[in-house]
Amino acid sequence: MTPPLRLDDYVERQRERIVGELLEWLRIPSVSADPAHAVDVRNSAEFAADLLRHAGFDHVALIDTPGAPSVYADWLHAGPDAPTVLVYGHHDVQPVDPIDAWRSPPFEPVIVDGECLARGAIDDKGQVLYEIEAARGLLETEGRLPVNLKFLIEGEEEVGSPNFEDLLARHHALLACDAIVVSDTGMLAVDVPSTDVAMRGLVAFTVRLTSATTDLHSGLFGGAVPNPLHHLAAIVAALHDDTGSVALPGFYDAVRPLAPHELESLAAQPFDEDAFMQNAGVERLEGEHQRTTLERIGSRPTAEVVGLHGGYTGEGVKTIVPAWAEAKISFRLVADQHPDAISELFQAWVRRRVPQGIRVDIEPHGGVAPARTPTDHWSFGALTRAIERVWGAPPLLTRVGGSGPEEALGRVLGAPVLFLGVGLPDDRIHAPNERMVMAQFWRGLLAAGELWAEMAAANPRAWHAPTTAEP
Amino acid sequence: MTPPLRLDDYVERQRERIVGELLEWLRIPSVSADPAHAVDVRNSAEFAADLLRHAGFDHVALIDTPGAPSVYADWLHAGPDAPTVLVYGHHDVQPVDPIDAWRSPPFEPVIVDGECLARGAIDDKGQVLYEIEAARGLLETEGRLPVNLKFLIEGEEEVGSPNFEDLLARHHALLACDAIVVSDTGMLAVDVPSTDVAMRGLVAFTVRLTSATTDLHSGLFGGAVPNPLHHLAAIVAALHDDTGSVALPGFYDAVRPLAPHELESLAAQPFDEDAFMQNAGVERLEGEHQRTTLERIGSRPTAEVVGLHGGYTGEGVKTIVPAWAEAKISFRLVADQHPDAISELFQAWVRRRVPQGIRVDIEPHGGVAPARTPTDHWSFGALTRAIERVWGAPPLLTRVGGSGPEEALGRVLGAPVLFLGVGLPDDRIHAPNERMVMAQFWRGLLAAGELWAEMAAANPRAWHAPTTAEP
Repeated sequence: MTPPLRLDDYVERQRERIVGELLEWLRIPSVSADPAHAVDVRNSAEFAADLLRHAGFDHVALIDTPGAPSVYADWLHAGPDAPTVLVYGHHDVQPVDPIDAWRSPPFEPVIVDGECLARGAIDDKGQVLYEIEAARGLLETEGRLPVNLKFLIEGEEEVGSPNFEDLLARHHALLACDAIVVSDTGMLAVDVPSTDVAMRGLVAFTVRLTSATTDLHSGLFGGAVPNPLHHLAAIVAALHDDTGSVALPGFYDAVRPLAPHELESLAAQPFDEDAFMQNAGVERLEGEHQRTTLERIGSRPTAEVVGLHGGYTGEGVKTIVPAWAEAKISFRLVADQHPDAISELFQAWVRRRVPQGIRVDIEPHGGVAPARTPTDHWSFGALTRAIERVWGAPPLLTRVGGSGPEEALGRVLGAPVLFLGVGLPDDRIHAPNERMVMAQFWRGLLAAGELWAEMAAANPRAWHAPTTAEP
Repeated sequence: MTPPLRLDDYVERQRERIVGELLEWLRIPSVSADPAHAVDVRNSAEFAADLLRHAGFDHVALIDTPGAPSVYADWLHAGPDAPTVLVYGHHDVQPVDPIDAWRSPPFEPVIVDGECLARGAIDDKGQVLYEIEAARGLLETEGRLPVNLKFLIEGEEEVGSPNFEDLLARHHALLACDAIVVSDTGMLAVDVPSTDVAMRGLVAFTVRLTSATTDLHSGLFGGAVPNPLHHLAAIVAALHDDTGSVALPGFYDAVRPLAPHELESLAAQPFDEDAFMQNAGVERLEGEHQRTTLERIGSRPTAEVVGLHGGYTGEGVKTIVPAWAEAKISFRLVADQHPDAISELFQAWVRRRVPQGIRVDIEPHGGVAPARTPTDHWSFGALTRAIERVWGAPPLLTRVGGSGPEEALGRVLGAPVLFLGVGLPDDRIHAPNERMVMAQFWRGLLAAGELWAEMAAANPRAWHAPTTAEP
């Protein structure tokens, strides 16, 4: 039998206050993609800093960047032999459009039927909050934490973390740790716990073609002048070949194939394709031929046009040849693709496809390399046991399709990256009506505490404790 | 030597008032594409009706349609043997976006350096006004017109005249005439008068593909769900083949090839490709291979995507797979292509290209067949002489790339359609900073009067006048 979970009582007593903090934080529209919300992103950082101060962290500070600020906090009294753990999350959120599709306003959070509905509920404020509250609970009930704990809560994750790697490098010593815990992911189902062992990378671009100084009358000029929408559509149409693969020459060169045991693990995962389709709200699946849906969304790189516009898009029709057209094109990357290499490949490929006389402007947006978790590290065993203790079953190992700054975290700080995430497949992150299942939130809070205790117990340095304890 | 032009004195005396009427009319934002401007379109019709009443027309009325109203007026006292002429124009205007590109607000007309700058200045309020003022001038100075004159001023020309053919059919008797004069076109240059002998037709569609009920996270779903922007781009990319021709099977089947003498006439036209490019603000020309620019813009059918949008198009980037994508696709048609046939062809072609599981919605916008002027009709000689008298040279014969309801006018009313148009190639119609060169406006006013006089003289029925005059 497992012992009673140490934070149960704390949660019971503090439930209303914790929910209040959650709703208050979610009211701050910290949309990092929109410069108009820069003040809100800063307010969100200040809010997180206050949460950490009230939790009992000693040293709490905003770390400024050329963009939005990150929040740092530490509590370092577990002793020199206890492991040091860095918890990573982010306090910025995605844009909310299409706003009309929300059942309730995205920044007026509500809890209905055990679900918290708001932009940022699960991605990522809710997941950061349970980490903070787990620390507050342990500090209040036990007066200490089992590990030395640091928090780093980023403010630009939803725009590709453009300043994050630089921040890590500049504050390398401050952020030094033995393991990194990322709470910005999900699991397969409420009763099928899982943890990610790989994350896709991301690189994205705005591509703008300009062929004229102004829109032209399609009757007077159409048929003789270039239409930038035609050229841009040709580029988009050429992104994939007939087998659904990305058609950029060399795109797959660096992709590390799944080992046979990884393919087996993938095949063993419970996956209901009908439920996946229903959850996505689609009536069709498509992608790389000869690949399963699970392979496509987790272990394979992709190219997606996330937005495109040009010309007249209002009511009715307007007889013009547009002067410009713009597409936002993103690539998800897997190990060992490198964003810089893909960026060079893509930009050269686009320029080759646009004829002389049409201007091409390509604006890159961030760049995140794919990440892998070393499953043979002592901290990974601690994570497995913590999840099993809270959810009643050990986690399946998944590959997540999403991208984050985890690769830079692991690489720059030289520590393994673990994923403790309580999101669910139908949480509608990045879409209207984002939600967090509250039962998962409370479990996340318990699991964070369990994980630190397991890490303290598993820490290889702990075997030396007696020699230093008896001088 | 030609006799002095009969309206010279009138113009001299009334110049300020006429300019005032022009500016006042241009202040009405009669954008027919935008339902929010429905009241303005009606106000514009009322304004035109008042102009016609003050000019001395007996019977002036708005003709309602399921959309915007047309304006009708007549003066029928030239006698039963005089020809009856119907003047056609339109009082609605194009949308104004991109509004930021206007040097002065589109509905605050200004006259600078002999040019009137406003939305609708040349397309088509200015051209309707000189016709009305020519009639007013003759009625004021001579007490009569040389022909029986009718006006029909449409309110939905810029949205493809969806109710116009029905209006013509319903009011067939009221609108009966011997010749139709359309003032909604242009000429090659101020000193190179020309008249159109063919107009391209038009049919346009909004095509919307929907693949999901909401935008999806590109990390969680990308690579496995359909991206409607990819499918729409594939459709747009497939619209043209490698030789720049429209790739819809059967699209060119009904196109009547230019006769050798038409090709010669086209080749004889002064055309400065560099000036055309500079005027268009482009650094590249492209289109059907093996065709000259003049052929491409006047005598050949085209396909143009006039607008496309889908997904996230704001600042930065958003990592989604969009739920839908929409394109506005228009076709310019030439004799003897029929809009209904092309519409059927196109809709079936689109549906064949979209896989099951993606919803296709196609909304057609109007449909105008291509038009041709019978150059052997007596009225065409009258037009040639009127233009020569005002501009000092006979008109070259051109084919206009634009589309209008002229085909329906000629077909339903059974009369030849003549084009008296004073627009110039760089008037920026349908684009920001639309203008009218005022010198062309005043010449148009004189030419309208000359044309009616020449028509009265050339009217074949006039030869019978002695027999009826001496009973």
